[in-house]
Formats: sequence, C-alpha cells, structure tokens
Amino acid sequence: MSKVIAINAGSSSLKFQLFEMPEETVLTKGLVERIGLSDGVFTISKPDGTSDTEVTDIPDHSVAVQMLLSKLVSNGIVASLDEIDGIGHRVVHGGEKFDDSAIIDEATLAEIEELSELAPLHNPANVTGIRAFQAVLPNVPAVAVFDTAFHQTMPEKSFLYSLPYEYYKEYGIRKYGFHGTSHKYVSERAAALLGRPIEHLRLISCHLGNGASIAAIEGGKSIDTSMGFTPLAGVAMGTRSGNIDPALMPFIMEKTGQTADEVLDTLNKKSGMLGVSGVSSDLRDLSKAAEEGNERAITALEVFASRIHKYIGSYAARMSGVDAIIFTAGIGENDIASRARIMNGLEFMGIYWDPALNNVRGEEQFISYPHSPVKVIVIPTNEEVMIARDVSRLAGV
Amino acid sequence: MSKVIAINAGSSSLKFQLFEMPEETVLTKGLVERIGLSDGVFTISKPDGTSDTEVTDIPDHSVAVQMLLSKLVSNGIVASLDEIDGIGHRVVHGGEKFDDSAIIDEATLAEIEELSELAPLHNPANVTGIRAFQAVLPNVPAVAVFDTAFHQTMPEKSFLYSLPYEYYKEYGIRKYGFHGTSHKYVSERAAALLGRPIEHLRLISCHLGNGASIAAIEGGKSIDTSMGFTPLAGVAMGTRSGNIDPALMPFIMEKTGQTADEVLDTLNKKSGMLGVSGVSSDLRDLSKAAEEGNERAITALEVFASRIHKYIGSYAARMSGVDAIIFTAGIGENDIASRARIMNGLEFMGIYWDPALNNVRGEEQFISYPHSPVKVIVIPTNEEVMIARDVSRLAGV
Repeated sequence: MSKVIAINAGSSSLKFQLFEMPEETVLTKGLVERIGLSDGVFTISKPDGTSDTEVTDIPDHSVAVQMLLSKLVSNGIVASLDEIDGIGHRVVHGGEKFDDSAIIDEATLAEIEELSELAPLHNPANVTGIRAFQAVLPNVPAVAVFDTAFHQTMPEKSFLYSLPYEYYKEYGIRKYGFHGTSHKYVSERAAALLGRPIEHLRLISCHLGNGASIAAIEGGKSIDTSMGFTPLAGVAMGTRSGNIDPALMPFIMEKTGQTADEVLDTLNKKSGMLGVSGVSSDLRDLSKAAEEGNERAITALEVFASRIHKYIGSYAARMSGVDAIIFTAGIGENDIASRARIMNGLEFMGIYWDPALNNVRGEEQFISYPHSPVKVIVIPTNEEVMIARDVSRLAGV
Repeated sequence: MSKVIAINAGSSSLKFQLFEMPEETVLTKGLVERIGLSDGVFTISKPDGTSDTEVTDIPDHSVAVQMLLSKLVSNGIVASLDEIDGIGHRVVHGGEKFDDSAIIDEATLAEIEELSELAPLHNPANVTGIRAFQAVLPNVPAVAVFDTAFHQTMPEKSFLYSLPYEYYKEYGIRKYGFHGTSHKYVSERAAALLGRPIEHLRLISCHLGNGASIAAIEGGKSIDTSMGFTPLAGVAMGTRSGNIDPALMPFIMEKTGQTADEVLDTLNKKSGMLGVSGVSSDLRDLSKAAEEGNERAITALEVFASRIHKYIGSYAARMSGVDAIIFTAGIGENDIASRARIMNGLEFMGIYWDPALNNVRGEEQFISYPHSPVKVIVIPTNEEVMIARDVSRLAGV
C-alpha cells in the first residue's frame, strides 16, 4: 500500500487529492484558492467527513504546498510526511514530446518549460506547482501527466492542418487536443461498463465543462478530437468561440480596432455561450433565462447543443460507426436538458435514448434504451485517479 | 421564345452563356480572359461546333462586352442585338439583403456595391460586369443571381457564430455560405432523378472544385453549409485552409512576422492541398504524385477526403438522416478516387456504393447500389442555366 497525491496547479490555485494505492481510496482532497493574495482560501476534507477551511495570507505556491502538507499531518490524514510515496502533477501541454506520463527530472522539467510557448497560460503554472513540491519533498518521486498525451495517437490526417507544411515542422503547428486524461478515463470506464474489450470499441467521448471537447476513440486510442492547437478550437463553449471562419480575425480587427491578441482574448473570454446570450457562460443561468423566455439564451443553448450534435455525426463517420457515446464533466454529467438536445435526432445512426434514464446527475448510468444499438452512458470523470494510477505505474509505488 | 445571356464577371475575366428559353438550349458560350491586358483572349463557340478565338487588346470590361455582342452577330448566333431579351449576372455576395435573385435597378446596384465590404475581391468585379452591359444594352432587363441567396434559409443556430452577439448585429458577422446557385441546381436535379418531391428529401450536396463547400439541404432549403463568413471556411481546399484553430492566426503572425492580412493571404492562397503537399493545388497533379509514392501528396489527398467525409456525418446528424449524397463541380464530377475515399466507411449510415458505378466522369449517374438506403449521385452542376431561369422568372422573358 502506498499514498499518492494528485496535484492540479493553476496560476492562483492548487487542487489536490490524496489516494491510497492500489485501492484508489480517496483519503482527502481539497483546494487552495487565491494564491498570491492576502485572503487566500485553503480547504481540505477531514477524515470525519467535515471540511477545514482557512482564510489566510498565501503568498505563493510554496507556501500553499507547505500548508497542504502540514494540514495532512495536523488533521491526522497521515502520521508523517514520510508516508507520501509519490506525487502526480497535471501538466496541460506535452507537445509531441510526451505521448505518455513521465517521471519528472530536470530534463523533463526543462521540456515542460520549453512547451510553455504552446500553452503560455498553463504550463508555467504547472511548473510552479512542480517546483513547490520539489522544494518541500525533494526525495519523493513525481510524475507529470499531460492533457495532450492521450491524443498523440491521432494520425496525420487528423492532426495536420491544411496549412503550409513547414508551419508544422518549424513551429509545431498541429492539432494537439486536450482533456486527454479525462477522455482516457471515461473511455476505459465505458469499456468496463459495456463489458467489452476496449480494443473492439469505437467511442465518442463528450467532455462538456466550461471548456468542452469531443474525442473519437477507436480501440482505446484517440484518433480525432475537437480542440486543436489550443483549447479554443472545436465546439462553442462557455466563453470560447470554438471554430470560426479564420478570415474573421482580420475583419474583427479592422472593424473594432482590436489587435490580434485582443481579438484572441475576446474569442477566449467573451464569446461562446456568453457572447451569444449576453447573459452568462454558465448553462444553469442560461437554462433559467431560457425558461423565462430570453430568446438569446434559447439560441445560445441551441448553438451549444447543435455543434456537439454535429461532432457526434462527424466522429461516427470518422470511425465508420460508433458503439457508445459518453457524457462527462460538469455539463455532461449534470445537464439533463443539454444532453437531450444533443441526442435528439440521432436515431438514424442507431442511438435510441430514454428520457427517464436521462434524468440523472453525476452518476454512472446508461441512458440509452437496452435495445439501442449504440449505447449512451453518463460517466463522471476522474482525472485525479488517472494521475495517481500513472504515478503508481511509472514510479512503482 | 426568348434569348437570355448568363454572365459571370471576375476581375479580369468574363464568362458567358446564351440560352434560348424556356427550352434552355445553349446557343453559344465563351470566355474573355486577361481583360485589362494587351493580349486579352476572347473565345466563343460557333453554331457549327467549332470555336472562334481572338487574341487582342481588351482594355476593360466594356470593351469585352462590346466584343462579345458583336461576335454574337458576326458569328450568326443572333441576327441583331434586339434578340437579347434578358441578362443574368452572377453576384457573389448578397448579404442578408437578398434571399432570392433580384431585378437590377439603381437601388439593387447600390446594395451590391455596399456589400463589397463583405466580398472585396468579388462584388466589385461583378458590378463592373453589370455596368458594362448597362452601357451597351441599357433597355434589356438584367437580374442579379447571388451565390449566398440559397443559404439565407439557414436558421440562426446554423448561421450564428458563437461570438459576441453585437458582432452580428453591427458588422454582419455570420455564416453566409457560397456556391448557393450550384447547391440549388444539383438538389433540384437530385429530386428529379430520385423521382421524389424535394420537400420530402434530406440531401447533402458536395460541391468540390478549386473551392469546395458542403451543404445540408432539407426540403429543398439550405439549413447548413461549410463555408462561412467568407469562402475560406469549411473543408480543406486547393489552396484554402478551411477551418483551423482561430488562435493560430496570432501565433503565425508572431512566428513568421506576417501581418494579419498577410496570414489571411497565406490561408487563402498557399494552404489547403498545396500547403500540405508542397506539390500542387490540383488534385490531378496530387494523384499523379501520390501514385509515384510522394508521401505528402498522399497525406494531402487523405486530408482532403477525410474532412469531407466527416462533414457528411455531421450533416446527416444535422438532418437526423440523409436520403442522398450529391457530388458536383470539377472534383466531385470527375475525381473517381476522391469520391471513393470520401465514401469509404459510411455503410453505418446506410451508404452502399458500387466501385463500378463510381467509375464515371462528368455525367449524371447513381453510384450507390440499387439497394442502398441512401443514394449517391454524381450530378454535373449548371449555374448558368439557373441564372437564365431566374432571368426568365423575374424579368418575365
């Protein structure tokens, strides 16, 4: 038995979950928010089921990590820090260098830093989290788990943009895809729930959260996905535009006087459901507004569902058919009405779903009729357990 | 009986076709190229089946039109210009103003000019062609036939980008779609060939030429299409990128030092199959190179087919099924291997096609097996006859 901690570090936050392996028992989990501010918030779940929240000055990630470790001891979750056998870090971008998780050494860390060019908002924060743990627990093995790694199995015809080829060779411009750890987790769960070897399955995984991506998974391998060079591409999301005509950027620049980077910021933060509705990026708010008759909220919900609905058709074609559709992440697990809108009218490809079964939130459940040739399954995602598994596998703990 | 001429004016070219209506007999057709140069080329087909080509100074569109009209008389195609009863002009962009063809008067012309902002390369040339005919045949009724009009039936959830809503209201940023005249022609032909009322049909039309677009046509109305605000969007084309991650433009600008307009030019002229292959934008050249073992040519052909294949799945989902797939335009009508690559692996949605029947170029032919639930039809497009029909309908000639 060993204890492994899974870490997801953002620029001002740090999420953690401590597992006992190989049982995958969650011993505790928690969140540090507002790192860098004087009113940082630390929350950790305690063995008795309650949680401990503290508001205090958390100047940087090192302090956050020290606080986390001392709380593990003070709350009796571990007797001493020696019990921690491995650390897993989520890293957003692994480029073409990483098609699997990797033991973190100086070479790995240098490569992750180099890849910051491709993920300037994410990789530097991930590196900060890694270094903070290295400072406090220098002798505990650590593993990097990449959001992009699962999609490295995509063939060229999927990942190559039809741009001048040298853009790929010289600048690494290609489709990478994201949410890989989640797509991998739910596809493995789906195979288990279907009771069939994953090698024989064609799955379409819909990871629908604030960011949303769809993946075509054939024989357990990602062969296409909706996000691209960055997480901006693909379906319409909470605040992100997804795919648009590439000619729009210069047109918007000219019309609005924004620079290319400013337009990019608009596409990332003021578009998507927020942009269409003018109401909110949150589907719960939109559903409420739609119920009250807000026309643009209704349109936003239709746009959201329609783009995903079309991806399902597209990826079924990509794999010459599909065995199961998976819904996961915040919206996919909980938004009953969105799932209904997405699945309506897919009977022609063998998808028959039951509105009664679809009336579920946050639980593993088949929502297709038993006779449906294509199954539809809600599967809550669990990226943390995937991280812990990879630490066990690679660090041998 | 009346004579109607269909005109397609580009910046330095003018294509024409003279019809006897309502029989739709082609009396002559031809092409003026290199307008504005001292070695302009004028070609017209003669009643005896031969053609008349002249290389001469053609300084502007007015001269080209005068030359065309005098050649009609000198070649005995018409006895006098009084026989011309109507003129139809192809116009690329009709914006949201035109959901049908329109009689050209000063108000129409002003609106077409205003729409040049949305089609700066095309509408001004179309206007030049219109004015040249007005100068020479001021009393002959003329009709504008818009590439965008057929797609004006798209619902909001198809045409709206998930961008800030005011971009649509203030700047007209939305999906317009192009090749509408062609998509309309082939969808009407498909209904005739299927012997079924178009109101009952769900069709996917693949217009595959140097530019390529796919349309979802339900009940005779376009409800979605792959091109967008401009003809750059959608599938990968000869030299155009089609959809890419919108975040790529600022990244390419930074990496290559190009301005946004220069990147746009690269996306329009140096991308697509040319960019991927480094060989050619022409599928005939690519097929030859692929046969000789050129790996990047093979990849380019796979990329081209794969994106269209996925659109077929996507649009089948959009319409909750499909009754027939149509292939048209240069590649769609003639490239046997591309059609095969596009259709491979669509049996799951009821598409069964016969390689022997697919062995056809430039002719109307069903290439699906008779038992195939979804039909596949090659239909040579005919935008000119659609233009002539609209002149007859609107000008009453």
